[in-house]
Amino acid sequence: MAAYPEDLRELVEAHLDRLSYSPRPQTSGLEEAMRYSLLAGGKRIRPVLCLATARALGADPAAVLPTAAALELIHTYSLIHDDLPAMDDDELRRGRPTSHVAHGEDVAILAGDALFAEAIRLVCELQEGEPARILGAVREIAAATGVDGMVGGQYVDVTGARADPESLRLLHSLKTGRLIAASICSALVLVGTDGDEEPYRRFAAELGILFQIVDDILDVTGSDEELGKPHGSDERHGKVTYVSLFGLERARELANASHEEATQALNDVPGDVSSLRQIADFIYTRQS
Amino acid sequence: MAAYPEDLRELVEAHLDRLSYSPRPQTSGLEEAMRYSLLAGGKRIRPVLCLATARALGADPAAVLPTAAALELIHTYSLIHDDLPAMDDDELRRGRPTSHVAHGEDVAILAGDALFAEAIRLVCELQEGEPARILGAVREIAAATGVDGMVGGQYVDVTGARADPESLRLLHSLKTGRLIAASICSALVLVGTDGDEEPYRRFAAELGILFQIVDDILDVTGSDEELGKPHGSDERHGKVTYVSLFGLERARELANASHEEATQALNDVPGDVSSLRQIADFIYTRQS
Repeated sequence: MAAYPEDLRELVEAHLDRLSYSPRPQTSGLEEAMRYSLLAGGKRIRPVLCLATARALGADPAAVLPTAAALELIHTYSLIHDDLPAMDDDELRRGRPTSHVAHGEDVAILAGDALFAEAIRLVCELQEGEPARILGAVREIAAATGVDGMVGGQYVDVTGARADPESLRLLHSLKTGRLIAASICSALVLVGTDGDEEPYRRFAAELGILFQIVDDILDVTGSDEELGKPHGSDERHGKVTYVSLFGLERARELANASHEEATQALNDVPGDVSSLRQIADFIYTRQS
Repeated sequence: MAAYPEDLRELVEAHLDRLSYSPRPQTSGLEEAMRYSLLAGGKRIRPVLCLATARALGADPAAVLPTAAALELIHTYSLIHDDLPAMDDDELRRGRPTSHVAHGEDVAILAGDALFAEAIRLVCELQEGEPARILGAVREIAAATGVDGMVGGQYVDVTGARADPESLRLLHSLKTGRLIAASICSALVLVGTDGDEEPYRRFAAELGILFQIVDDILDVTGSDEELGKPHGSDERHGKVTYVSLFGLERARELANASHEEATQALNDVPGDVSSLRQIADFIYTRQS
């Protein structure tokens, strides 16, 4: 497996662990449910991307931590809601019972809701910088979450409108791609660029696609233990995926092409892109 | 029934009707579900409060419309999620089938999620003013929604920690009070005050309490037709309310004292508080 910017992941992990939301005993159970899902491990790809983008822009990665953390809170909220009985009805996530199994469906819905609200609050309260830039980052994040983003993508997913390659691409560009892109673009907005943002945005868009193709492949080829959940769940849910649509071999070719595309984009980015390159390589070669 | 600032309500209604979220046919069903709940009528108390506060501060109410609308989007999202089978399991709201009855549970969850994200996005994109002020308004709204706000209050509600008057007061101050207060405080932040914000904040806090006491009374005394849903649902859900705790007569006395308190606070506010006074009177005397 490719190397990963562990220094950035550790920054994120420590920051997430320090966050606290609830000043009262009456709501501490809600905070517990939020932390149960938030601190369940994982590679923290979205916040690490945010920090790695800040690094590529020549800024101190720690300077964008509150915004990076918000991206992980929102990602966690989406996982909790996606797992609900009314959605994918999944009982395992990262090898542990999903939120509604552990805390009940009502608390799981609220834990997701609260993670989103706290994500926005924490950016407003903890992110330093010019207000116009912070507001721009909030806008990136909210837009990537809404109808033309993650939630819209989940809607396309549950309503099943993706029988053809084009719909499949739209689904993933909304459901996964927008938040991954926002991880990069929020750092662009916060730090600012002297020059051209286009290669960053090209990299961001391609990375979301790469992530999803690999996800579809792993759902077929991964072991339950590696994935932390039963593999083959896409097929059981009757989901159209890159694999069901193109076959495993062609899906692997597509992943390869997508990784190449992402790497090419990075060649056009000035500055230290080593961490960004590591993340792209990791997403391409990950086993879970 | 008391007069109501209908001019402000009409501004809000027209603005809400104009909002659009979805640029694509694949997510237009989600937008439909959002609009189904958002455009179901109602007095628009939160956004009208926001506009009335701007008026009291001497500003053009229309100048805070995007923020006011966001408050209604968030209120609507909370109603959709509160009605879910895993929560209150209500089938009627404002005389119509609730969102999950009309659109399915999965789409209802997503419509709530999307309304929240779009609320934040729309403030960032449409609200005019100094970025620091807009960011402050976003912060007010997000904080009022999160763990120490509406979602935390709903958590206290579903976990049933409110057998005593103090817990009951906390529940409502979080679940209802914080967003009502944010309706006033977001306008304070956006417009700014020359002088003392304290009477506004006192008014805001009291109004939330008044709203809830009257709500509890109406659940007992209102007719199904007036309420647009079956009355007596608090008792059926075994909920502790101001009425169950103190009896109807004492609850009415409490409402009276709370209305007095709110009105007193307004006496200390300079400027044209006529619209704010109308809203307080309306909340006190409403029949549904």
